[in-house]
Amino acid sequence: MKLIEGGVTAPAGFLASAGKGGLRKSGKSDIALILSKRVCNAAAVFTSSRLKAAPVVVTASLISAGKGKLNGAVINSGNANALTGRRGLRDAKKMGAHAAKLLDVPAGRMAVFSTGVIGQFLPMNKVYAGIESAVSALSESLSAGSKAAEAIMTTDRVRKEVAVEQMLADGRRIRIGGMTKGSGMIAPEMKGLHATTLTFITTDAPVSGSYLQKCLDRYAEDTFNMVSVDGDQSTNDSVLVLSNGSAGGPSVRNDPMFEEAFGYVMRQLSIMLAMDGEGATKLLTVEVNGARNAQQAKLAARAVVKSNLVKCAVFGGDPNVGRIAMALGSSGCDIDFSKLDVSIGENRKCPVISSGIVTDKGRKAASMMKKREVKFTIDLHKGKGSAVALGCDLSYGYVRINSAYTT
Amino acid sequence: MKLIEGGVTAPAGFLASAGKGGLRKSGKSDIALILSKRVCNAAAVFTSSRLKAAPVVVTASLISAGKGKLNGAVINSGNANALTGRRGLRDAKKMGAHAAKLLDVPAGRMAVFSTGVIGQFLPMNKVYAGIESAVSALSESLSAGSKAAEAIMTTDRVRKEVAVEQMLADGRRIRIGGMTKGSGMIAPEMKGLHATTLTFITTDAPVSGSYLQKCLDRYAEDTFNMVSVDGDQSTNDSVLVLSNGSAGGPSVRNDPMFEEAFGYVMRQLSIMLAMDGEGATKLLTVEVNGARNAQQAKLAARAVVKSNLVKCAVFGGDPNVGRIAMALGSSGCDIDFSKLDVSIGENRKCPVISSGIVTDKGRKAASMMKKREVKFTIDLHKGKGSAVALGCDLSYGYVRINSAYTT
Repeated sequence: MKLIEGGVTAPAGFLASAGKGGLRKSGKSDIALILSKRVCNAAAVFTSSRLKAAPVVVTASLISAGKGKLNGAVINSGNANALTGRRGLRDAKKMGAHAAKLLDVPAGRMAVFSTGVIGQFLPMNKVYAGIESAVSALSESLSAGSKAAEAIMTTDRVRKEVAVEQMLADGRRIRIGGMTKGSGMIAPEMKGLHATTLTFITTDAPVSGSYLQKCLDRYAEDTFNMVSVDGDQSTNDSVLVLSNGSAGGPSVRNDPMFEEAFGYVMRQLSIMLAMDGEGATKLLTVEVNGARNAQQAKLAARAVVKSNLVKCAVFGGDPNVGRIAMALGSSGCDIDFSKLDVSIGENRKCPVISSGIVTDKGRKAASMMKKREVKFTIDLHKGKGSAVALGCDLSYGYVRINSAYTT
Repeated sequence: MKLIEGGVTAPAGFLASAGKGGLRKSGKSDIALILSKRVCNAAAVFTSSRLKAAPVVVTASLISAGKGKLNGAVINSGNANALTGRRGLRDAKKMGAHAAKLLDVPAGRMAVFSTGVIGQFLPMNKVYAGIESAVSALSESLSAGSKAAEAIMTTDRVRKEVAVEQMLADGRRIRIGGMTKGSGMIAPEMKGLHATTLTFITTDAPVSGSYLQKCLDRYAEDTFNMVSVDGDQSTNDSVLVLSNGSAGGPSVRNDPMFEEAFGYVMRQLSIMLAMDGEGATKLLTVEVNGARNAQQAKLAARAVVKSNLVKCAVFGGDPNVGRIAMALGSSGCDIDFSKLDVSIGENRKCPVISSGIVTDKGRKAASMMKKREVKFTIDLHKGKGSAVALGCDLSYGYVRINSAYTT
């Protein structure tokens, strides 16, 4: 597998662009388009929140009505089109229909996504203007993909895209590209189909919708669903995967090479999300080993990565390691604390809790806590369950960003 | 019912004091004693965390071994004696035994509590010295109760005590007093016996242990268990209730006047906790009405009060009311969002969401969000379930306090 330049336009046959309709106060681009001239097989996961934004409802029904066939997606930032009732549903449909018409693809083949403030109606004239400017900018270039990745940003500091080239088991070369956005309101819930943040993955490999969905479900569990920035779950969380088959050849199925590349793209995008958490100054990785099973390990890893007290300690570079045990205590994971081992750093470099007793909270532990990337390795010695959760620290910046957002 | 001065020493026959052993870096008092010469009936609830601090384990077993008979409690601040293995259990027992010996009460009649940093052994010489100074200061005065309330503080800004006098159904006058501490690491879990923070309630009414426990379980659900400061559950959470019967007369049972007074004391203490949340600048009250049942209403109210994004909006006085709906969406409560009504202020003063549509996020809503006490009233129109949750905003102060705590 080879890491290559670009994002959603790296695979053959995909175009992208950004447009500006005036939805964002900053005056930045606010409409993104992804388009494949060839019809794509699609798979998607959405938020499990009971409050689903209008575009989530519309896109989910569109994918199932169209039996998973799409030509692309139109995305706006600056407004979530959530908590907008029936008018919101109508607006989401109009947004997709307008894009489809201008792009000359069948109605119902453009998926719709929104991100931004909750509880405001979409200013449709601005949306239309943005779509029009995006349509005229569509291109297969890598920079067009990057511009699309910038247009979906809200409080994100950096655009997030990744692409790989992989040789399949049969020798074909295929590409997978992706882009994601999301900074706050990030904490998926572990039930049924769902996801976190807005993520778009394209591939020129010919893949059936059902195999795409299988891959997506499998890797979402271990990547996006293990990221937490602030414990809040969005109304708009979505991941969309599009396969246009431009690489040619027979349909890919149960190919470990494809899955390796697909999983890599999802993992990289989820790490980018965690690193760009609102106000984040550090990436926090929590690895749990030796839980009774994988599900238990996930409970434990997620509880630590979500704890405000742990996150503050990471921000301050303070080796207050008792808080790790505190978070484990109410995680719901079955733990014998007399066997608990915790280390900070790669390869268990600095052990801080051994057999349930704090052994180091001195200078070495403090220096490990002060790094830009902080990793906790937690060994429970109960079984073979492992999991990794990703998050970030809780800083003044998080409070600043979120105490003055709409105003 | 009459609100009176004082705390745990307001009821007849209770003494209290503070001592200083050098456990707190600030040099403040760090040992508190509560004592009744007459043996008390006791009831208690403890954290449901799997990581229970040594004093929680020791006191729970002491209460059940002694069939709920206690003379008092010895409490230290500055060190949680949690994650301290067998040595921690021995230390907790020694702490209680030392107090019992000096006070000349039977061994096993002094409950033990600790609060402070996790993962450090108790410095027993300092603990002993503190107990000795506290024993010599014991007094029935109201100021002695206040000093005890100060000695149990950690990051608390104010001492928290309350006392009431109530006339029972049979005309007897009894008193109930209480003190509590807790500022961060506050978010109880709604399962089985448990509580949050350290709370001590005394009464001179003669009450059986089982009736005390019934009252405690009932009111803990609606008071302490509905408070959230930061979503983290402590290893040391405890509520202890002591009845010494000094008011005389037959044992109180199923007396609505007693329960009214008991519930009032618990509610006031829980409000004080929320108001003194770490870094809190505002009290947040979330009232949910019209849920399918009370349990569903609690899920909804707790989700809103716990959301970091809602808490940041409250801190900033920003009427970003869509976040309230976002938090409800993933609360687990069954909600028809097309019927959702939300208001800010007392008596639904400023409606902001009506039938699922944001109706006001302008100047009036902003002015309501800028008050010291912010209240959201959420009407779900599904059934008759109601609940009230208490919390506070998430400020720079919270991050400051918790990013530099042990160091």
